[in-house]
Order: sequence, then structure tokens, then C-alpha cells
Amino acid sequence: MTQARLMDGTALARRIVEESAKRAADLTERTGSAPCLATVLVGEDPASVTYVRMKQNRCRKAGIVSRHVELPAATTTAELVGTLRELSADPAVNGILLQHPVGDHIDERAAFEAIAPEKDVDGVTFASFATMSFGLPGFVSCTPGGILRLLDAYDVDPAGKRAVVVGRSAILGKPVGMLLLARDATVTYCHSRTQDLSAAVREADIVVAAVGRPRLIRGQDIKPGAVVIDAGYNPGNIGDVDFDSAVARASLITPVPGGVGPMTIATLLEQTVTAAARQLGV
Amino acid sequence: MTQARLMDGTALARRIVEESAKRAADLTERTGSAPCLATVLVGEDPASVTYVRMKQNRCRKAGIVSRHVELPAATTTAELVGTLRELSADPAVNGILLQHPVGDHIDERAAFEAIAPEKDVDGVTFASFATMSFGLPGFVSCTPGGILRLLDAYDVDPAGKRAVVVGRSAILGKPVGMLLLARDATVTYCHSRTQDLSAAVREADIVVAAVGRPRLIRGQDIKPGAVVIDAGYNPGNIGDVDFDSAVARASLITPVPGGVGPMTIATLLEQTVTAAARQLGV
Repeated sequence: MTQARLMDGTALARRIVEESAKRAADLTERTGSAPCLATVLVGEDPASVTYVRMKQNRCRKAGIVSRHVELPAATTTAELVGTLRELSADPAVNGILLQHPVGDHIDERAAFEAIAPEKDVDGVTFASFATMSFGLPGFVSCTPGGILRLLDAYDVDPAGKRAVVVGRSAILGKPVGMLLLARDATVTYCHSRTQDLSAAVREADIVVAAVGRPRLIRGQDIKPGAVVIDAGYNPGNIGDVDFDSAVARASLITPVPGGVGPMTIATLLEQTVTAAARQLGV
Repeated sequence: MTQARLMDGTALARRIVEESAKRAADLTERTGSAPCLATVLVGEDPASVTYVRMKQNRCRKAGIVSRHVELPAATTTAELVGTLRELSADPAVNGILLQHPVGDHIDERAAFEAIAPEKDVDGVTFASFATMSFGLPGFVSCTPGGILRLLDAYDVDPAGKRAVVVGRSAILGKPVGMLLLARDATVTYCHSRTQDLSAAVREADIVVAAVGRPRLIRGQDIKPGAVVIDAGYNPGNIGDVDFDSAVARASLITPVPGGVGPMTIATLLEQTVTAAARQLGV
């Protein structure tokens, strides 16, 4: 039985980060200041602390300055909005990342909307969602944008293909569907209320699993030759796709880990450099 | 052969307008000022002039004041943006409608974004698209919102159903798909690049045709018992659905005219009254 080719997100992400580092160095040389990403963390959730630290480390290695803002867990929506507005107005800050989650007592949407669209390098604002949806210039949500880059790198042109997105989160499912639609795929959104998920997935030339349920998508549901993108993260490095059965049916598949995962930070770094270049007019 | 039941948009729209008129009268009595819709027209395109006049007439009959702003065809983007910002800041204006199209030399998106979201009763801003997409409170695009009202009025619950939207315009196809997704339908977007449109439409429990191609969708493509919403307008009052063949397969179908059409203005008037009530805090 033939096996799908693996889509190597680690290697592609490395290339994107290297290129971003070159652009960052060039920009620093030409303008005298390095691109700057502000990371904002509310509270001390251990996973969030780890994520933010990882992003800062990756920034530093790429020649991007990171400015870290730590706020106590008891921060109010108004205080967080105030901080994000200050960063939005600060010419020394090129990109802003608000680490999710911010705590249930905070209106996260109000916080996101306080990020200036031109600094929304994480692609979380209404404006970024709309520009993704309408195929207009703007920043993309990092994981969805990374998925499109992976498809491009493996010469998968979504135009005219049937794409099925399983999951409809604001930061992953919905935007990746919109990006695929903007690239002329025929896009179907499936989710927890979908009645016959297997039947819907079987129609797909491109499957994007983005729902956070371990091994939900099984090989028998994959159309032979389909491209399978597993954007699910579940405890124990288990994806939303049952890899062992899917790899026997797909033509291309992302492993977990090493597929979609590395693309998220790479996209964040790339967009931060792009934001700096645009703001500095170079 | 059984025939589909007709979805009477004319009657439903009349009820919505009557109810909006009552709310407008109540609001006028309580606050001393009637709800006000500002209509902005750029140039003298005859169809646009007719549309705007129709909207103004319908406003007047519903007890909504309309303030009309006519700008010359040579208006620049900056001038139009300035006008829309003034109206957005004017406490006497509750809703703003910018009549489409505005002319090729104008950045229509920049103009739309100059409309304050809380006055975007036509549902054209990025913010309105995002709130529709994320199931958040806000104003809906009028035709998509009207379609959802029609479904509700005929007890069609989208949850768990397969909905196929043919068309992906910013003002109709994309938002109606997002509204259906927010109501838990499994949503497929088809468009000009879709390879086998007939096969995709045959999967649909709910078909929304919104593409502007006369009689594109034929009865043979309709799943027996499906609900067919024809949001297409083509010269000669011809819809995107071939009514005569579709009516024999569908369970419910919107006629053209008298289906989706009347719902658009009804939604505009209803949202204008809602905007006024919110702004006045009553």
C-alpha cells in the first residue's frame, strides 16, 4: 500500500524564520531599530507562560525585539484595553500579541479590538478576519496562514477543489475556511452539530481538521488521494486525524507534531517583520 | 406531483415593517425625536436613485426620518469618508446607508469602514461581518438577515442541516453562509470556480442561490424536500433558480419577486429602529 507524502512543517517554518531573520537584520541596518513584537500576558497560566516565553525566544533568535507586558490575573477589561491601546499607539511597537486565554472575567473581544489592525500580527481582530474573508490585504491568523503556506509549498492549489474544514473556531476553523474560499476552493464547514461528518469529509480533496478531538477523522473517511491537514492539538501530541489509517489513503498529510504546529510561530514572526517594514515605509 | 409551499416574503416583510413602525412611533413619543436613517448617494446612477428613493419612502411610511445626502459623481474617497464620519458622529443620525455602487474611483471599503458599527444598519462594515460570523450581537447585512428571518418564519431550523450557498459576495453570499453556520448548519460555499455545482447543490437541505445568474439552479439539482431560497435578481424578475422545475422538488421555495426581495428593506427599517433605541437607551 502506498503511503502519503509527509508535509514537513518544521523545515518550511525554518525557511520562513530564516528569511524573516534576514529581513529583520536588513531592516535594523537600514532604520537603526529592530522590529518589535509586544507580547501581553494576563495572569500566570503555566501553559500561557510557556507559550509566551517560546515566542519571545524565537523572536530574539530572529532579530526581533520582544517587549513583554505581564498583567496580574485580576486585570480588568478596561485596564487591558488601555494597555493594548497604548501599545497600538506606540511607534516603537510594530506588532502586538495578546496571549489567549485572558481569564473569564475579561471581555476578550473588546481586548482584541483594542489592537490596531496594522499591528495585529496574530490576526485576531475583526478587521483581520474580514480582510482574510474578502481576500484583501491584511494580516492573517497565524495557524490558518501557516496552513495556506504549507499547501503552497507542496503545490496544492485550492482552486476548484473541495475543501472541508472540521471546526469553526474564530481563530482557526473560520479563518482557514475563508482563506481557502478566497483561493477559490469550494469550502464546507463541519462542526459538532454536523450530522454525517464521515460523509462530508469523504467529499474533500483537502481536509483541515481543527476541532480538538483526538483521532476524530479516520482513514476510512479520507477520499483516496486527498490532502490532509491536521491542525488539532490534543494531550500527548495526538492530532484530530488518526494518522496511521489516514496516511494510507491521503496523498499528502501533515504529521503531529512537525506539521502545522511550527508554522504558527513562523507566520507570527514573518508578519511582525512585515508590519515593521510597512510602518517604517521600507 | 406535489408542489413546494411558497415562502411569502411580501407578507412577512409587511409584518416586520408594521412592527418597526409601532416601535418607531413609541420611541418618538418617549424621546421626542423619530429614528433617523441617513442615506448617502454618490452620483446619479438611475437604479441607485430609484433604490434610495424607495428606501426613503418606506422610511417615511414607517415613521423613520430620512436624511438624504447627495454627492456628485466626482466625489473623492476622502470626501466621502469625511461625510460618513460626520454622520457617524452626529447624534441626530441613528443609521447610515451608503448606496452601492459608489463609482470605481472611490475606495468603497474605506467608505464603508467610516461608518460607525453602531450605525451600520445595512451591515456592510468589517465589524458587522465579523459579528455575524462569530455569532455576536451586531447588525446583519440586510438580505442575509432577511433570509434568516424567512427561514425562522417557516420553522426551518438550520441546525444540523446541510446548507449550500451559491455565491460568495461580501454583502450576500459570505454573510448568509456565516449566519447559517452560526445557527449550526453545515455550510458549503459554491461559486464560479466550483467544479461540480450540481453535485454540491444536491447535498443541500437548504439552498441559497445568490450569484446573479438567471435560472442557474435547476430542479434536477434540488434534493427532494429541500428548502430553496432564491436571492438572485436578474433582469426581467428572473431568479437564480429555475422556479418551474424547482417548485416540483422543494418543500419550501421563495418566489421571485415576492420572496427574499421585500425582506431586505424590512430588515433595514427594523435595524434602524433598533439602532435608535440602543443609542437613546430606551
